[in-house]
Amino acid sequence: MSSQPPHPTLLIPGPIEFDDAVLQSMSHYSESHVAPGFVSTFGDTLSLLRKLFQTTDPASQPFVISGSGTLGWDLVAANLVEPGEDVLVLTTGYFGDSFADALKVYGANVTQLKGAVGSKPQLPEIEKALKEKKYKMVTVTHVDTSTGVLSTLPDLSELVRRVSPETLLIVDGVCSVAGEEIEFDKWKLDGVVTASQKAIGCPAGLSISIFSGRAIKTLETRKAPVGSYFASMNKWIPIMRNYEAKKPSYFATPSPQLIHALNTALQLILAAGPLSERFAKHAEVSDKIKKAVAALGLKQVASDPSEQSHCMTAIYLPETIKATDVLPALAKRNVVFAGGIHKEIAPKYIRFGHMGVSVTDPKRGDIDTAIKALEEALTEHGYQKP
Amino acid sequence: MSSQPPHPTLLIPGPIEFDDAVLQSMSHYSESHVAPGFVSTFGDTLSLLRKLFQTTDPASQPFVISGSGTLGWDLVAANLVEPGEDVLVLTTGYFGDSFADALKVYGANVTQLKGAVGSKPQLPEIEKALKEKKYKMVTVTHVDTSTGVLSTLPDLSELVRRVSPETLLIVDGVCSVAGEEIEFDKWKLDGVVTASQKAIGCPAGLSISIFSGRAIKTLETRKAPVGSYFASMNKWIPIMRNYEAKKPSYFATPSPQLIHALNTALQLILAAGPLSERFAKHAEVSDKIKKAVAALGLKQVASDPSEQSHCMTAIYLPETIKATDVLPALAKRNVVFAGGIHKEIAPKYIRFGHMGVSVTDPKRGDIDTAIKALEEALTEHGYQKP
Repeated sequence: MSSQPPHPTLLIPGPIEFDDAVLQSMSHYSESHVAPGFVSTFGDTLSLLRKLFQTTDPASQPFVISGSGTLGWDLVAANLVEPGEDVLVLTTGYFGDSFADALKVYGANVTQLKGAVGSKPQLPEIEKALKEKKYKMVTVTHVDTSTGVLSTLPDLSELVRRVSPETLLIVDGVCSVAGEEIEFDKWKLDGVVTASQKAIGCPAGLSISIFSGRAIKTLETRKAPVGSYFASMNKWIPIMRNYEAKKPSYFATPSPQLIHALNTALQLILAAGPLSERFAKHAEVSDKIKKAVAALGLKQVASDPSEQSHCMTAIYLPETIKATDVLPALAKRNVVFAGGIHKEIAPKYIRFGHMGVSVTDPKRGDIDTAIKALEEALTEHGYQKP
Repeated sequence: MSSQPPHPTLLIPGPIEFDDAVLQSMSHYSESHVAPGFVSTFGDTLSLLRKLFQTTDPASQPFVISGSGTLGWDLVAANLVEPGEDVLVLTTGYFGDSFADALKVYGANVTQLKGAVGSKPQLPEIEKALKEKKYKMVTVTHVDTSTGVLSTLPDLSELVRRVSPETLLIVDGVCSVAGEEIEFDKWKLDGVVTASQKAIGCPAGLSISIFSGRAIKTLETRKAPVGSYFASMNKWIPIMRNYEAKKPSYFATPSPQLIHALNTALQLILAAGPLSERFAKHAEVSDKIKKAVAALGLKQVASDPSEQSHCMTAIYLPETIKATDVLPALAKRNVVFAGGIHKEIAPKYIRFGHMGVSVTDPKRGDIDTAIKALEEALTEHGYQKP
């Protein structure tokens, strides 16, 4: 039985429901950030991240830094691009736009390719852009939390490597890591930035990322000074390497409690079986949800099935029903969904996050409860399914 | 009785020992960052911070952002100074040097006034500097965690306002807030940056700060764009104002668990009686520790009693004994002190942090245990007190 008190089931696209063991790790007694026990835990956590990202290349460098997922954009923008350099941002919603904003703050010259709302820039269009200009970097939002649009990475990576092999490929994996498959080495990615509170299943407060040896080399050979102090990779790289080598090190005080919780979350993920099974489970549950949404006569914001995330579903409401009606009706049934945040369509849709324990532990019944609650909430507001 | 398992008593200058209730708040069940319950908790937390900083001026703006204390420097450097503007950094140790580095990253033209090791720049010297050049900002480390040197603020503020009234006065209060008195309004401060894990008594992971209406005005009238994305006050101000008005708002996902813990920590501090009593207690315990250190025949890094912090004591070791001997000898006795980090004297001293529950709850016996352990550890290594 859960040690958590009864509470509404949180099914937004992050934060998600957390395992009891993860929450217990959050209340770990106080330790020095340079004590051997904690140094070992932090070091192990970095090594576990390598497994989660499926990288065995020793040149890859994981980072865990106190902050929000947003901090990952600063890491990329302040360290891997120099002022005036060109970046191609593939945008599938709110978060692609924001990544572009972050890049501009640090002086990047940003070109955005935007899919229509609920769609993504297509490969031929990307190929054309890559042939027109030499880009230092391409960024892509793996799953845009505002739309649920999934950008597939292997084909994109193949394209970038073929047409513009020197260009770095950076993935915003905030709403995908640990829910959607990512093979960092095999797919030749140069960076993935994410956060703790989504499919990884650890409370918010950690910026988590991994960068390739090629990306680190880019940092090492840059001419302009790094544009941030707290987000300076030059400051953090020795710290991360020392922790992973089980040596104490200091730049800024990490959060021992959050690191313990992340360690627990990663151990649970990796002990549960091959990662491929975890991703398959997320896909299976997502398919079931999408089928149920269709059976209710509702459309998704991500219109093409091949572009639909397995971590969340953004659902257009019937025209007669407002998000401000359906969300409270869900809450009455102890289910928490999120409202829309894509500027152009915000009031017209809701977001259902399905990641982590709500997906992997069927005994919880979270998904079935949520589907039933959605149907009831719509019915309560006069909707009749077709 | 404590709900925490037996563990070594952490008496470093942060993180500190935490109250059971604070650690229990860390394992709060998952909530949406925009749900009414959490929005209310976050809003209350910001209001409680106003009380901790002793400000009633509605123009003052508190911030709580996921990050380390270090992030506070980026907040100051990226928002309140424009490239090429002059900043006078008053340095009393490692952290003053680092603050200067952070300011330079964002383009400030930094002049440092440094005290000799264990001392601080004196007022006449500061007055001279302020008369030689118009500074946009003066920064001061209230307590430098590397040396335990205390910089008194009222006299400094009076000087700056008299000689250079337009100059902003910014305080690094990482190792002082909630342990040393700070009267934000009365002392006419323009900013205090701190972190959760020191005298406030909440696990690490939050950058906490407050800025005056004058500082916010400086931001609003700046000509150069803000130099950071994640540390952009322009992004955070509407979020903090909305949360405090109990309205949901989003820029980057906060950590509900850490905010709950901070709320609990602040409630405990403010419910315990007038803040003046808390500060008096920290001073009383600090005096006792310093007396014991002197009785052991040991000297402090901060040589002048008027420049000694009440939150920590940096203690020079006898010449015959190394920190790498005494720290393990303390650890054997379940007491954790920190080693030195001031470059010029690092191996020669140790640091004893005395903040929060270890000070305010005498039933714990932490301080007496630590003093006894220190004496035993020195004796074990052949030291004979005079």
